Amino acid sequence: MIKYTDGGVCAAKGFKGAGIHCGFRKNQSKKDLALIYSEAPCSAAAVYTQNLVQGAPIAVTKKHLANGTAKAVICNSGNANTCNANGTYIAETTCELLAKELGISADDIIVASTGVIGVEMTMAPFEAGIAPLVAALGEDGSADVNEAIMTTDTKPKQCAVSFTAGGRECHIGGVAKGSGMIHPNMATMLVFVTSDCAISPEMLQTALSADVQDSFNMISVDGDTSTNDMVTVMCNGLAGNETITAPGADYDAFCEALAAVTQQLCRGIAADGEGASKLLTCAVSGAVDKAAARTSAKSVICSALLKAAMFGADANWGRVLCAIGYSGADVDVSKIGVTFKSAAGSVEVCKDGSGVPFSEEEAKKVLSESEIDIIVTAGDGPGSATAWGCDLTYEYVHINGDYRT
Amino acid sequence: MIKYTDGGVCAAKGFKGAGIHCGFRKNQSKKDLALIYSEAPCSAAAVYTQNLVQGAPIAVTKKHLANGTAKAVICNSGNANTCNANGTYIAETTCELLAKELGISADDIIVASTGVIGVEMTMAPFEAGIAPLVAALGEDGSADVNEAIMTTDTKPKQCAVSFTAGGRECHIGGVAKGSGMIHPNMATMLVFVTSDCAISPEMLQTALSADVQDSFNMISVDGDTSTNDMVTVMCNGLAGNETITAPGADYDAFCEALAAVTQQLCRGIAADGEGASKLLTCAVSGAVDKAAARTSAKSVICSALLKAAMFGADANWGRVLCAIGYSGADVDVSKIGVTFKSAAGSVEVCKDGSGVPFSEEEAKKVLSESEIDIIVTAGDGPGSATAWGCDLTYEYVHINGDYRT
Repeated sequence: MIKYTDGGVCAAKGFKGAGIHCGFRKNQSKKDLALIYSEAPCSAAAVYTQNLVQGAPIAVTKKHLANGTAKAVICNSGNANTCNANGTYIAETTCELLAKELGISADDIIVASTGVIGVEMTMAPFEAGIAPLVAALGEDGSADVNEAIMTTDTKPKQCAVSFTAGGRECHIGGVAKGSGMIHPNMATMLVFVTSDCAISPEMLQTALSADVQDSFNMISVDGDTSTNDMVTVMCNGLAGNETITAPGADYDAFCEALAAVTQQLCRGIAADGEGASKLLTCAVSGAVDKAAARTSAKSVICSALLKAAMFGADANWGRVLCAIGYSGADVDVSKIGVTFKSAAGSVEVCKDGSGVPFSEEEAKKVLSESEIDIIVTAGDGPGSATAWGCDLTYEYVHINGDYRT
Repeated sequence: MIKYTDGGVCAAKGFKGAGIHCGFRKNQSKKDLALIYSEAPCSAAAVYTQNLVQGAPIAVTKKHLANGTAKAVICNSGNANTCNANGTYIAETTCELLAKELGISADDIIVASTGVIGVEMTMAPFEAGIAPLVAALGEDGSADVNEAIMTTDTKPKQCAVSFTAGGRECHIGGVAKGSGMIHPNMATMLVFVTSDCAISPEMLQTALSADVQDSFNMISVDGDTSTNDMVTVMCNGLAGNETITAPGADYDAFCEALAAVTQQLCRGIAADGEGASKLLTCAVSGAVDKAAARTSAKSVICSALLKAAMFGADANWGRVLCAIGYSGADVDVSKIGVTFKSAAGSVEVCKDGSGVPFSEEEAKKVLSESEIDIIVTAGDGPGSATAWGCDLTYEYVHINGDYRT
């Protein structure tokens, strides 16, 4: 009973958003500071990058979320506030300024940054921007938030659903940014999810930690795990359902709705990978277990050779087998089957680990679409998993050959 | 006392080589079948790909080398003989035909294939080619062997040294092919090394297994571990030194000479990575141990973002720290220093985990050279390691977007 609806982080009751230009970017027409605010206190949960090099906002947010509650998210784009000598000072002072302006505690603020690593930051843009940012808060702020957190993203990525828990209509909305340096490990670039569902912080963290295993941890654009990855969920309970405090039907409904939002955002991130012209979805079934399926699917969408072949609409299925073979997953390669599928049709290219005759012309047609499914069937057991990625293009090289200038 | 000399696999006494066109490639001017032959029996050792999907020649060669001796190597390019239903038959029959032509046992033949995966193979090119191949054997055959094993390689990669063991002048020569699908795990694409040094099969295998940890396992072009990786060494003992059967000065001299050859071939493979315009060398020192140094160095040269930045001569050192941070190595990131160095000079960009001011103009000059050193200093211990890679260019995407046609 999950229904996709319009909007993003302001789709749930009681959430407002804003996005403005405050000076992190030279281009004045590019918004670079975002705010999400809930009038009611929220249960909050998060997962973070596993990179040993971490942006200063990660540590500050971890501290603020220790008690499982939050009321606001502030996020700048244009500078990652990472590998700066004064990073912690910047992140903490930002929260203090915003807390004063909103009349809340600094401990209730999630802070995030995204952009270049290792470039000195000053407080000036925050000092100038926070008052007008708060003044701009509105229930229709989803799109502004989305725009303000984008870096090399070319498309906004937001999503919202409605569902029922405890007899009440609840909502979950989310926004994501991320295009390069995407290979999340326990978390992903920046994803902020909001909901009016009532759920305890403990159950919320459990739900999120489980969800990312099948959502953000299953996407890759370039194999580089960012220093600033963060997914947060805030639930303010304004839907009026009885608070979810234990597993059961309501918890399952929440998890299912959460997955509907996060997996949609995953597709958006992968499709908008730096330079991408195609969304790649690799679905593995028949693996010995879930872990083997995940490892195999992710290895396929991470292969630079496979990604380049998909860019060229070249049905070079040997690269699919090669990637599964070196993935480390426990797979009987002599039982693997591979089919390429898209809106233009489907073509079986490999069966029992060996090639089957197929029409190159038809394969070319299938692989020339903008969304390609790589369907892998193993013969080992019941494990299945899906991973999302994108093709490797000239544009990826262009974007990253001169990112800073 | 290691001296680089001219030549390759025929530099050591008693080795002959040949390379001809026999029909795996449409282009008649491209040699596609190579033979290396030793008149005297050889101690032989090898390491192979760890990919679960393996070319048929891998299994056949493993069987033939079980007794630690060999006399010849045959290798075709243009078809990897992998994921073919008749792969083992092809590899075995090839050895039988060659054995008959050379008058040796099929068990003394190393067989290898490189090219596209999953394309049906026939015996016809071998049947036509083996007699003229054997007829073409000569002491000056190094270059022909080199040419015949190349696929997307743009440059021949061979190397030879002389050294002294047991008072005798010995030689080691080697040839390598490999440009894409290069991310060896225990072995690499195809590397054939020959020597006239006398050494037992056991000591030879020990020397090779140790060597690849610091040579071929430390290069990456695209993160894809091939299905056909293989490094073999054949030593025929014609230098007349007392056979090396235990650790000691002679064994050390052999290992040092072997490393001089393999590391030179590594640089050649990385510099000739598909589409590469620059050789990247990442040298890590001060790591807590050798393993941490290796993991860090390899993670840096594998980062798609860092590779693209080097292509653009962009001193985006944050990507070096990011790659070390997600590598899994045990590193104190607050102590890391980074310097970029080339023939045009050197520029320090990061100290104690944070940026230091530097001239962008000077950095651009340093990074515009064709060989770039990325020097990473950790503050954790005595561990050091070097890894080799290349930049990520438009040409890589071009080559791999349409490899098969």
